[in-house]
Amino acid sequence: MRNPPTLLSLAIDSAVLNFSRISDLSFVPDHILLDLFQRILIAGKLNEKILKLFIATGKEEVLSFIESLNIRQPLVPVLPTIIIKNDEVDIVIGAIQSDLTSFMEAWRPFFSNFHLIVVKDPELKEELKIPGGFNLHVYTKSDIDRVVGLSAGSISFAGYACRYFGYLVSRKKYIISVDDDCVPAKNSRGELIDPISQHIINLSTPATPFFFNTLYDPYCEGADFVRGYPFSLRSGVECGLSCGLWLNLADFDAPTQALKPSLKNTRYVDAVLTVPARSMLPVSGINIAFNAELVGPALTPAFRLAKEGNLRWETVEDIWTGMCVKVICDHLRLGVKSGIPYVWRQERGNAIESLKKEWEGVKLMEDVVPFFQSLRLSETSVTAEDCVAEIAAAVKERLGSVNPKFVSAAATMVEWLKLWKRVRGQ
Amino acid sequence: MRNPPTLLSLAIDSAVLNFSRISDLSFVPDHILLDLFQRILIAGKLNEKILKLFIATGKEEVLSFIESLNIRQPLVPVLPTIIIKNDEVDIVIGAIQSDLTSFMEAWRPFFSNFHLIVVKDPELKEELKIPGGFNLHVYTKSDIDRVVGLSAGSISFAGYACRYFGYLVSRKKYIISVDDDCVPAKNSRGELIDPISQHIINLSTPATPFFFNTLYDPYCEGADFVRGYPFSLRSGVECGLSCGLWLNLADFDAPTQALKPSLKNTRYVDAVLTVPARSMLPVSGINIAFNAELVGPALTPAFRLAKEGNLRWETVEDIWTGMCVKVICDHLRLGVKSGIPYVWRQERGNAIESLKKEWEGVKLMEDVVPFFQSLRLSETSVTAEDCVAEIAAAVKERLGSVNPKFVSAAATMVEWLKLWKRVRGQ
Repeated sequence: MRNPPTLLSLAIDSAVLNFSRISDLSFVPDHILLDLFQRILIAGKLNEKILKLFIATGKEEVLSFIESLNIRQPLVPVLPTIIIKNDEVDIVIGAIQSDLTSFMEAWRPFFSNFHLIVVKDPELKEELKIPGGFNLHVYTKSDIDRVVGLSAGSISFAGYACRYFGYLVSRKKYIISVDDDCVPAKNSRGELIDPISQHIINLSTPATPFFFNTLYDPYCEGADFVRGYPFSLRSGVECGLSCGLWLNLADFDAPTQALKPSLKNTRYVDAVLTVPARSMLPVSGINIAFNAELVGPALTPAFRLAKEGNLRWETVEDIWTGMCVKVICDHLRLGVKSGIPYVWRQERGNAIESLKKEWEGVKLMEDVVPFFQSLRLSETSVTAEDCVAEIAAAVKERLGSVNPKFVSAAATMVEWLKLWKRVRGQ
Repeated sequence: MRNPPTLLSLAIDSAVLNFSRISDLSFVPDHILLDLFQRILIAGKLNEKILKLFIATGKEEVLSFIESLNIRQPLVPVLPTIIIKNDEVDIVIGAIQSDLTSFMEAWRPFFSNFHLIVVKDPELKEELKIPGGFNLHVYTKSDIDRVVGLSAGSISFAGYACRYFGYLVSRKKYIISVDDDCVPAKNSRGELIDPISQHIINLSTPATPFFFNTLYDPYCEGADFVRGYPFSLRSGVECGLSCGLWLNLADFDAPTQALKPSLKNTRYVDAVLTVPARSMLPVSGINIAFNAELVGPALTPAFRLAKEGNLRWETVEDIWTGMCVKVICDHLRLGVKSGIPYVWRQERGNAIESLKKEWEGVKLMEDVVPFFQSLRLSETSVTAEDCVAEIAAAVKERLGSVNPKFVSAAATMVEWLKLWKRVRGQ
């Protein structure tokens, strides 16, 4: 039979359990300190704060034990997580369809604590139908004309581009943006997920673009850095852009969708990762969040195809802005994450019909991608605005002769910078 | 009431269903061709072969329809998948423990169709216990002495390094290697997975290191390239290395495991991806597969710590070889994949005890990672052997003065190359 526990062992048990409330060890008898430290170590509760408390006791026995295990302060991972408050976030919705009832109801549990900016597609004739009970501001064509005026003749806010007007008039540091044909997805256990919280987690925890972690996001609960990951890179960098994904109708281009009409994305991959520095990706604007102070000026409706409509697979403007953001993040030592949260995309449009229009965008990617892959910004560009100006100049110079689309994209980026400065006052 | 189907429509239905067996359309009446083509398109069955058949008919009506939809041959994704036969694969197991009974039984369903190479740790005294019914060859210390002889004095095959002897004596193109404390994992639906098949899939389908696909491996069933992915990069490149992952005990280093003893990896991420070019990763040797012809010479037990033992978190040799392979793949335009398959890792050893030894490896990573990140190989290195020789010279020159460990790593790599050439005859 085991002996009953001593009062001392019960006291230590309790101290280990409640250690987070202890801020001073000067009242703990010397002969217990080492025992307490070992118990905390075994319980997996040692962190930087607790280590400091024990070191502050100055007790030789404790210090030599710490030294014998090579436990050092910088070893303890410090998670430089930012706290993002709800009132620092705007959710921007470009209204391509007039009846937003089912969309808004599906998002109600997750939208209700945030301020929403709804921008009505200026080409949409019908009145918007939006259910009550949201903290929102609706912008229409007259607002666009009033705010933008004649100063930005080449910028169009028609179709999907209307959301960019929302980015412009937002006063918040963080912007989350979802297409109006998407609803929150369910995870592989069938539970409804909260895409808003997940985007906020992605933006508030560090990104790790300079070394790939094979267990994906090391800041995710239950994860960490894998053996071999350099400690000097474990604090990571700030995250500029969070790219969410899609279930059901995936974001394929029109040729792929037309050739594989029954192809649906059903694979829920429960991970988010930092896209490594110097690697380009096709950013989809369907479901994204970004830090507008860090990268906002790069999200412009600059790259617009002539026959573009209100179908995602006909657009490339988000692919373009995504490459701008990625190049800027690589240059400014910021991160871009891709992965969760997922949204559930509904069917819209006929891919075979779109094939005639899409071909131009598909062809242009063959010039766009090598351009951005080889682009290196100069040391003098230290803000996103500087970077966008430098990118615009390079687009004009290096791509201008390839296709007139690039000349107008460069011009629009320059105009956008002026508009951003005037409207956002940055 | 609907009219009953005509004989013609039934014939077309049947032709659409069985089109893969048709290799000539010259017997199809002209007036049916267009209808048949449209039906195949709608059924999602159009592929390069079928498109060629229709184009070969030369019928104006069909050609102009194909043109009106902008369907072109290079548009159809060609999947350059290799067929890997079972007799092209060796499974190498380094036996660190003597009783392999439970290990082999757990793997029996997946090992039984392959040839196995078991290499007994030369420092292991006890006899190996291996159940019957496998096609295997066991190598022991006397084989190592016989094959390697005195020619490779600085190469040690003790502990985890014994598997490298298996790589050396294998005559196969593909090698799969798993630690003997791992068993096949279950996926998130609780189904036992087959890691061997998955590694073969990873090696036989292309890798895409030059642009990141946000839906992960585009060659995976149910996936494809996301909108914006350049068509010119969709055929991908050959895969040199497939890095699998671990459930339960993750591959953390000793400090992380000691500070978070209860931290287990429970997240099954159902994805594999190509690690982008120029991005380094910590390759773990626990569960890998590689194309030995393409990258084999880079997997050497070159980077050995003085106090290294038989515990994974004490080793860095696999991290080192992983960086060599990644640099070589980037240089030779090959790919490295990371993700599924998972294995289930059992507990072994005491992380706190290992802290005293591991510290050296952790510190050395701070020099190893920037070295490999900045390494650019010369145009004259066109094989893995050339690349390993060039890397060894660079290690000696640029890292030799930092720590004597690097001098001996460089020397071992040079010796390994000679041994590889002599034993593998390449």
